[in-house]
Amino acid sequence: MAHLNDHYLKLKAGYLFPEIGRRVKAFCDAHPDAAKRLIRCGIGDVTEPLPPAVIAALHQAVDEMAVRETFKGYGPEQGYEWLRAAIAQHDYRARGIEVADDEIFVSDGSKCDCGNILDIFGNQNRIAVTDPVYPVYVDTNVMAGHTGPIDDFGAFAGLVYLAGNADNGFVPAPPTEAVDLIYLCSPNNPTGAVMTRAQLTAWVNYALAHRAIILFDAAYEAYITDPALPHSVFEIPGARECAIEFRSFSKNGGFTGTRCAFTVVPKTLLADTETGERRPLHPLWQRRMTTKFNGVSYPVQRAAAALYSPAGQAQVRGLVEHYLGNARVLVAGAQAAGWRVFGGVNAPYIWVQTPGGLTSWQAFDKILHAANVVITPGSGFGQAGEGWFRISSFNSRANAEEVAKRLQTMKW
Amino acid sequence: MAHLNDHYLKLKAGYLFPEIGRRVKAFCDAHPDAAKRLIRCGIGDVTEPLPPAVIAALHQAVDEMAVRETFKGYGPEQGYEWLRAAIAQHDYRARGIEVADDEIFVSDGSKCDCGNILDIFGNQNRIAVTDPVYPVYVDTNVMAGHTGPIDDFGAFAGLVYLAGNADNGFVPAPPTEAVDLIYLCSPNNPTGAVMTRAQLTAWVNYALAHRAIILFDAAYEAYITDPALPHSVFEIPGARECAIEFRSFSKNGGFTGTRCAFTVVPKTLLADTETGERRPLHPLWQRRMTTKFNGVSYPVQRAAAALYSPAGQAQVRGLVEHYLGNARVLVAGAQAAGWRVFGGVNAPYIWVQTPGGLTSWQAFDKILHAANVVITPGSGFGQAGEGWFRISSFNSRANAEEVAKRLQTMKW
Repeated sequence: MAHLNDHYLKLKAGYLFPEIGRRVKAFCDAHPDAAKRLIRCGIGDVTEPLPPAVIAALHQAVDEMAVRETFKGYGPEQGYEWLRAAIAQHDYRARGIEVADDEIFVSDGSKCDCGNILDIFGNQNRIAVTDPVYPVYVDTNVMAGHTGPIDDFGAFAGLVYLAGNADNGFVPAPPTEAVDLIYLCSPNNPTGAVMTRAQLTAWVNYALAHRAIILFDAAYEAYITDPALPHSVFEIPGARECAIEFRSFSKNGGFTGTRCAFTVVPKTLLADTETGERRPLHPLWQRRMTTKFNGVSYPVQRAAAALYSPAGQAQVRGLVEHYLGNARVLVAGAQAAGWRVFGGVNAPYIWVQTPGGLTSWQAFDKILHAANVVITPGSGFGQAGEGWFRISSFNSRANAEEVAKRLQTMKW
Repeated sequence: MAHLNDHYLKLKAGYLFPEIGRRVKAFCDAHPDAAKRLIRCGIGDVTEPLPPAVIAALHQAVDEMAVRETFKGYGPEQGYEWLRAAIAQHDYRARGIEVADDEIFVSDGSKCDCGNILDIFGNQNRIAVTDPVYPVYVDTNVMAGHTGPIDDFGAFAGLVYLAGNADNGFVPAPPTEAVDLIYLCSPNNPTGAVMTRAQLTAWVNYALAHRAIILFDAAYEAYITDPALPHSVFEIPGARECAIEFRSFSKNGGFTGTRCAFTVVPKTLLADTETGERRPLHPLWQRRMTTKFNGVSYPVQRAAAALYSPAGQAQVRGLVEHYLGNARVLVAGAQAAGWRVFGGVNAPYIWVQTPGGLTSWQAFDKILHAANVVITPGSGFGQAGEGWFRISSFNSRANAEEVAKRLQTMKW
C-alpha cells in the first residue's frame, strides 16, 4: 500500500497568509464601507508595473517565439549562458566579488530554491534558523523530516532557533553549540534588519570553524543604500568555502508575477559524505537542477537580462527608490505614533513593537478595525516575533502616506 | 559539519543526452562537411513556433504587466482559477471525465512535477518503473534514497523494473508482487507504445487491489488519434482512488521553452500514514506547491489558456498533425529499410530494433557516421532498451523526409 509523507502532518494547518486572508475577508464582509478604504500592507508583493526595458525585452522574445528560425525550445536547465554571465558580471565581479558564470543557477523563484536546496543535503544535519523567520525555511525542513513535532509556541523540536530581539537588533549572533546548516536573510524578512560586515564575518568564521554551511537569502539586497553594508555573503573572505546565496528579481525588477531568481553555488564549497570525505556541492545542485527542473521560460530570461541593461538598471533604481521612499514615510509615521520601530532603512519592511503589550494578532485586529490597514502579525514568523508586527512598504506613495497618517491618528 | 546527500553519489555520471552531445560534437569536429548535413532526431524537443493564439495572448499579458492597474504580482501558487477551470473543462469534463477545477495544479513543467511528486510520499514505498523508461522517474528516486547502488547493467537495487519487449508490445502487465508506486507513461517515451483501455484497466485494478498509486504521465496525450485509446487514466473507473496524472503543454502547444504543465490530484485519492490511517493526498500536494513553489509566470499562464480558445485548439491540432505526419514518414522509411518498428502511431516517437544485433550505441555511431542523423540509443532508457533506438518526429517535414531517405539508403 502507498504511504504518504507523514512529516507533512506535523505542519500547522493554518499558514500565516491564509489566516490573514480569512480575517480580512470576514472584516470586509461585515463592514462593507470600511472595506472600501482598506489598504493592504501585509504580504510583501510589489505593486508597480514591470520596467519599460523589461516590457520591451518580453515583447521581442515573444516575437522570436513566433518564428521558426528564432523559436526556442528547451534551454539549458541552469539558465542561458548570456543571463548567467550578466548576473555574475554585474552583481558580483563588477563589485569585486569572485563568482564564475557557471556558479549561477537561474530558477523560477527564491522560494523554490530555498526549499529545493535541501535536496542536496543529508538528513543528519542540524539546522539553525533565526527567529522570527521566513516560514519557508522551517516548513521545508519539517516536510523533509528534519524536525520533531511542533510545540505549543509553534516551535519544531530538533531545529535550533536563534532569537532576534530589540537588544541584538534582530541579528542573532552565532550559537555556542555546533550546527550544520544556517539560514540567514539580510536584509531580513520580516524584521528589515541588515547584517553589518562584522556580523556577517562572525557568521562566516563560525561556519568555517564548524564546517557548517550558510544558506544566505539576499532577496532584498537591492534595498541596501548604505555603502558599508554587505550585499552578498561572498563579500566576506572565506564565504566561498561555506555559503550558498539566493537572489531574486522579484523585489528589484518587480518579478513576483513574472518569476525569475538565481542561486549561487561556489565550486569551492564542500560538504561531508557519510564516509567522511569532502566533496563539492556544485555538481549535486547541477544534477538536481538538470534532473528536476527544465529551465525558466525563455521570454522571462530575456526579461531578467534586460534588468542589467543601462536603461534596466536605471529603472530598477527608480523602483527601489520608490519603495524605500514609502518605507521612510511609514517609519516616520510609526515613530510619530510613538512606536518602537526597526527596519525600513536599507530594507522594504518596517518592524514595529505592538503598543500596550498587545499580542501580534491583537494588534493586527485592532489596526484592521481602527485604521482599515492590513499588516502582518510578527508571531506568524515565529515565537520571537510575538509582540511585533511587520508593515510592508510595497505600495503606492499615496497609500503609504495615508497609512502613515491613519496609524498616527488611530484610537487604541 | 554539513553533510551532503550521499544518494546523489549513486547516480551515473553520464546522463544520456550529455553523452549524445559529446559524441555528436566529436563527430562534427572531425567531419566538418558531414556536420553541415547533420539532422537531429535525438532529443524530443519541438521545432515549430508557438501558435499565433499563444503569441497574441503573450503580447497582451505583457502589456498588462506594463500598467499599474493591470499589473500582476504573486498569483495563486497552484495557478490562476481561469486556467485551472479551462483545463478541467476542456481536457476532462468535456470528455466526460470527472475532474474538479481545484484538482488541477498548474506548474512550470512535467519533469518538475514527476520529480517533485515524491515529496508527498513516504520513503518506505516500493517503486515500480517500466523498462525502458524516462530517466527522471528513476533518478529522482535514487536522489530521494529509495534505491540501493547501481549494477553493471544500469539497474538500481530496490526498484522493480517491468520489462517491455516486442512480445508485450512494450506495455508491461502488472507484476505478481505488490508494489506501492507505479510510473506509467502513455503514449510512451521512449517507445511510442500506447496503452489500450484494457491494459490501463488492468493497472487500475491492480492498484486498487494493492492500494497502490499510479503516477500517470500523459505528456504525449495529444498525439492519440485512435478514438479507442484512453487519453487520461481518469477515463478508467476507479482511477480517482488510485492515480495522479501529469500533463504538459510542451508537446501539444510547443511550450518546451515557454514552460507550463499541470498535475491532477483527485481529492478522493488516499494514502496510508505510518499509523495505518488513510488520508487524502490532495492537501499534501497543495501544501507542497504553496510552500515550495510560487506559481507560473502570469504571461505564460495566459499563453496556456489561449491554447483552449477555438483558434488555439485548431492551431494545436495543426502542430500535432505536423509531427504525426513526420512520424508516418519516418515509420515508412524505417520499415522500407527492413527494420522492426514500434510506435510512431498515436505517438511522436518511433522505436526501432537495431539491425544485425548491434548494441544501441553501436547503432547510434553507425547512423551518425553513415547517415549523419542523430537518434537516441534505447539502452539510455534502461536495460530493456538495449538493441533498440528512438527516432523523434519533432522536426520539419523536409528533415523527416530526408532522414527517411537516408535511413533506407545507408550502408551498414
